[in-house]
Amino acid sequence: MKFTAYLAGEIHTSWREELTEKAKALDLPLEFVGPMTDHDRSDNIGELVMGLQSNAIAKDEAASQINNLRTQLLIKQSDLVIALFGEQYKQWNTAMDASAAITLQKPLILIRPEKLHHPLKELSNKANVTVENVNQALKVLSYVLE
Amino acid sequence: MKFTAYLAGEIHTSWREELTEKAKALDLPLEFVGPMTDHDRSDNIGELVMGLQSNAIAKDEAASQINNLRTQLLIKQSDLVIALFGEQYKQWNTAMDASAAITLQKPLILIRPEKLHHPLKELSNKANVTVENVNQALKVLSYVLE
Amino acid sequence: MKFTAYLAGEIHTSWREELTEKAKALDLPLEFVGPMTDHDRSDNIGELVMGLQSNAIAKDEAASQINNLRTQLLIKQSDLVIALFGEQYKQWNTAMDASAAITLQKPLILIRPEKLHHPLKELSNKANVTVENVNQALKVLSYVLE
Amino acid sequence: MKFTAYLAGEIHTSWREELTEKAKALDLPLEFVGPMTDHDRSDNIGELVMGLQSNAIAKDEAASQINNLRTQLLIKQSDLVIALFGEQYKQWNTAMDASAAITLQKPLILIRPEKLHHPLKELSNKANVTVENVNQALKVLSYVLE
Amino acid sequence: MKFTAYLAGEIHTSWREELTEKAKALDLPLEFVGPMTDHDRSDNIGELVMGLQSNAIAKDEAASQINNLRTQLLIKQSDLVIALFGEQYKQWNTAMDASAAITLQKPLILIRPEKLHHPLKELSNKANVTVENVNQALKVLSYVLE
Amino acid sequence: MKFTAYLAGEIHTSWREELTEKAKALDLPLEFVGPMTDHDRSDNIGELVMGLQSNAIAKDEAASQINNLRTQLLIKQSDLVIALFGEQYKQWNTAMDASAAITLQKPLILIRPEKLHHPLKELSNKANVTVENVNQALKVLSYVLE
Amino acid sequence: MKFTAYLAGEIHTSWREELTEKAKALDLPLEFVGPMTDHDRSDNIGELVMGLQSNAIAKDEAASQINNLRTQLLIKQSDLVIALFGEQYKQWNTAMDASAAITLQKPLILIRPEKLHHPLKELSNKANVTVENVNQALKVLSYVLE
Amino acid sequence: MKFTAYLAGEIHTSWREELTEKAKALDLPLEFVGPMTDHDRSDNIGELVMGLQSNAIAKDEAASQINNLRTQLLIKQSDLVIALFGEQYKQWNTAMDASAAITLQKPLILIRPEKLHHPLKELSNKANVTVENVNQALKVLSYVLE
Repeated sequence: MKFTAYLAGEIHTSWREELTEKAKALDLPLEFVGPMTDHDRSDNIGELVMGLQSNAIAKDEAASQINNLRTQLLIKQSDLVIALFGEQYKQWNTAMDASAAITLQKPLILIRPEKLHHPLKELSNKANVTVENVNQALKVLSYVLE
Repeated sequence: MKFTAYLAGEIHTSWREELTEKAKALDLPLEFVGPMTDHDRSDNIGELVMGLQSNAIAKDEAASQINNLRTQLLIKQSDLVIALFGEQYKQWNTAMDASAAITLQKPLILIRPEKLHHPLKELSNKANVTVENVNQALKVLSYVLE
Repeated sequence: MKFTAYLAGEIHTSWREELTEKAKALDLPLEFVGPMTDHDRSDNIGELVMGLQSNAIAKDEAASQINNLRTQLLIKQSDLVIALFGEQYKQWNTAMDASAAITLQKPLILIRPEKLHHPLKELSNKANVTVENVNQALKVLSYVLE
Repeated sequence: MKFTAYLAGEIHTSWREELTEKAKALDLPLEFVGPMTDHDRSDNIGELVMGLQSNAIAKDEAASQINNLRTQLLIKQSDLVIALFGEQYKQWNTAMDASAAITLQKPLILIRPEKLHHPLKELSNKANVTVENVNQALKVLSYVLE
Repeated sequence: MKFTAYLAGEIHTSWREELTEKAKALDLPLEFVGPMTDHDRSDNIGELVMGLQSNAIAKDEAASQINNLRTQLLIKQSDLVIALFGEQYKQWNTAMDASAAITLQKPLILIRPEKLHHPLKELSNKANVTVENVNQALKVLSYVLE
Repeated sequence: MKFTAYLAGEIHTSWREELTEKAKALDLPLEFVGPMTDHDRSDNIGELVMGLQSNAIAKDEAASQINNLRTQLLIKQSDLVIALFGEQYKQWNTAMDASAAITLQKPLILIRPEKLHHPLKELSNKANVTVENVNQALKVLSYVLE
Repeated sequence: MKFTAYLAGEIHTSWREELTEKAKALDLPLEFVGPMTDHDRSDNIGELVMGLQSNAIAKDEAASQINNLRTQLLIKQSDLVIALFGEQYKQWNTAMDASAAITLQKPLILIRPEKLHHPLKELSNKANVTVENVNQALKVLSYVLE
Repeated sequence: MKFTAYLAGEIHTSWREELTEKAKALDLPLEFVGPMTDHDRSDNIGELVMGLQSNAIAKDEAASQINNLRTQLLIKQSDLVIALFGEQYKQWNTAMDASAAITLQKPLILIRPEKLHHPLKELSNKANVTVENVNQALKVLSYVLE
């Protein structure tokens, strides 16, 4: 049996690469998918497809359509979701993806630095498991897929 | 026909009172429910019920259990959700509630100041309608319930 | 027991008034809801709420958001849907509403002039009942609610 | 990971072949399915199976049963739906298929010439992404499946 | 709390009247709905609405559309289904209604004479409770609604 | 793409073998599953597993548990259901399986001799397609899977 | 707004009466439903309806059918479930009811003495809130329904 | 066609090995998954991942999060669930898993010693099949997968 995990959240650090490589080293039966991690490409994809938009909001609307299509398609194919919150940025789409997973009854692992525990307390309570770093998430995955 | 709206989001301003009063003045067939808006009571409810917890995270976990029960119960009873993002705080539980509404196919009106358009672009694209203030939300409600 | 019917489709004739009055005369236990039937108001509602948009497509997008919110809210509250196709206009949102009803397993009565039978054959096959005019729809309703 | 896309809509132009060939040239992990594109065969299939019917409506009913069975089976197997509206024909079954996809929470890409924006505004607002031609749809697919 | 029960099955005996009257005498909080019990009216309703059909199968198809609309609407409103099989007739629509209730996770009480136990064994196993007569069904209802 | 079809209904004729062989000859991408077709084994399986039961009803209950488990497991794995009604037997479990397929929104092809059209009219109206013999069902399958 | 709570679990103490009376004293907008609390009546209801059964297992099967019908009907009508585990008895049906509530996404409050924390740890983690006594449950309800 | 079965329940005897080996010897098309069967590892996994917890309840909460993630992930992937109750321990999570399977409409085989029939009567009534030992379960599986 092979599982697919959607990696939601922060795109400015290399946590996806770290998780993917360590999971491979551990020989875990996991395939990983996720959002576009090239920030500029993600912000510009609407205009790349549909041409210049009339203002910044229209540009954002065009891009978010395509980003949401990607997320909806890939979360539906996934067996579990891992969402990482970093210390920068608003990250409301990370919370949106995590909540969608919960509502669809897909298991959710939440990774967040301890200092974010208070603003994330409701999401953490709804997640299956909350950990503080990628290594802890890997311990959970190893146990679950043993 | 009478509808129930869940008012998610910011609890430090009086937007719920404003919306409720104006809706009443307009005679809209709407009842409003929402989260606990007394911030301290919301943070302390876990310890109020279960006694002192061993640390801040345990205290938050105890409180969030009860806050999430409230939200789950009331969103399920609601016909639509109105979520307001302010300029302060992380507001990840607001994003969580809004996304739950979308995934449950409950209509969602998003209220946010224009300056938040970029970080909210994915959520805005998934909402039914995005507006900038309570008065615009009321215009939408008036039209929809005409 | 009292039922709610959503009346989808053509807004340029008075079939809703005819159906509503005759249903009342027959004392059928039915409440009727439906889309905005003032065509201009429906087309302009986006700009009325959000202000002037940058072009016709943006104006349409703003209006359709609010019209779709209305439809989603009211179809969800309805026990059955009655969709009428006239001979003018594209009426793709009528087909959209009818198909949403079918997929949600809400009963659907389709009213269409016989001459439209060919382009509506797939939708007609999925509807519960297809009739040609309001009086036939009323006979169905009378029987069903007897 | 490999995805299946249902290509709903116009059957009188070669857009399916164009999309399929270009997707192959781009090496996209996509398999395409769709309706019967031989118009005569689609209209006559009912009588081919069940014999001559008593009139044109009965013939259409017999054919649409089998066409709807095909569509229902193939949309259920698909991960996303791409619907193209041309400038001829009523195309109500295209709107029906697109709306079924939306209600089933399957991602939808809508392709339509700009001049159809007004009658398609509600469907466009519910689609994930609206573009004007096959090449734009391919740009979306390339980005989403990157 | 008040409940609605759909009474599926045999229309040639007076079991619905018996059940309704005894439930009333017992003051059970139950409202009863069900199919058209006038057999001729049920068989002819299609032609009454749509005019003479070209043959017996077309007449049956027209009638069954409207009968199925009635059943779908009323089962959806019901909290439980009671299905009675008699010793005459094929009664395949009774089995169809009972199975729809089971699949929708609505509670089902099956009433059948003991001699029908063998052909009904699979349906009986899926029903919540199987009894042999109306009085036993009433004992179940009294207990359940106590 | 390969599909699985559950063959519900009559077990005393060789229609499953006929359909399976002809589908193979036509190279249709179909795998077939179905109920136990050895009537005695089907009736006795409860006692074979659980030992002698106290009476005929208990024996039937024991057998039907296991037959229903088989049906539930295999229909869930199937992409469509083909149900054949013959002229003998009560066949209420066939109607039960067909109705479960409809309620689960799985496509259903109904095969029945013309003379059964009246008692099967409601089920026929809910099926996607009704035909009179295996060869017609194969024509439908060939067209749908083309 | 008024809510209904299903009170699952222990039937040998008066916790339901205590909870009901205190909720009334607090003027909480709650109606309570639950299982049969007369243990003998619950065990004998099968034979009371269907007559003497051939052995203890058949008697239990007859009774459990009717008890499960009651539970299924009443949980479906309820907005939340409160499950209390005592220190005696196996209470597997309490765990069954609590898990059904969770899977149906109905909010669950679990009441258990602290000493049962270990065997109930998985259920407790899935419940919205776990408390140790009726008074704590009332505090939760008061807060949630404020 | 190959099926996956989740083996819920008792972890202190070797019934999973027995069932797996005999199913293999019978060449049944079945893959088996299940909970962590190393009791200590199951109890300690929370602290292994997240470090020492402040008390026994916090330790249990940490472990149960991860055990529930495992169960949720694997039951979702499974086509049927087999739950075995032994004579020791509370086994409330076994009842929880069995009830989740039922509510998700996954087939359930219950294995329990005859002496447990009374406390398991409601769960047994909801299971598809109840047997007393692994060999009987294998007979059921052989028949169902024939």
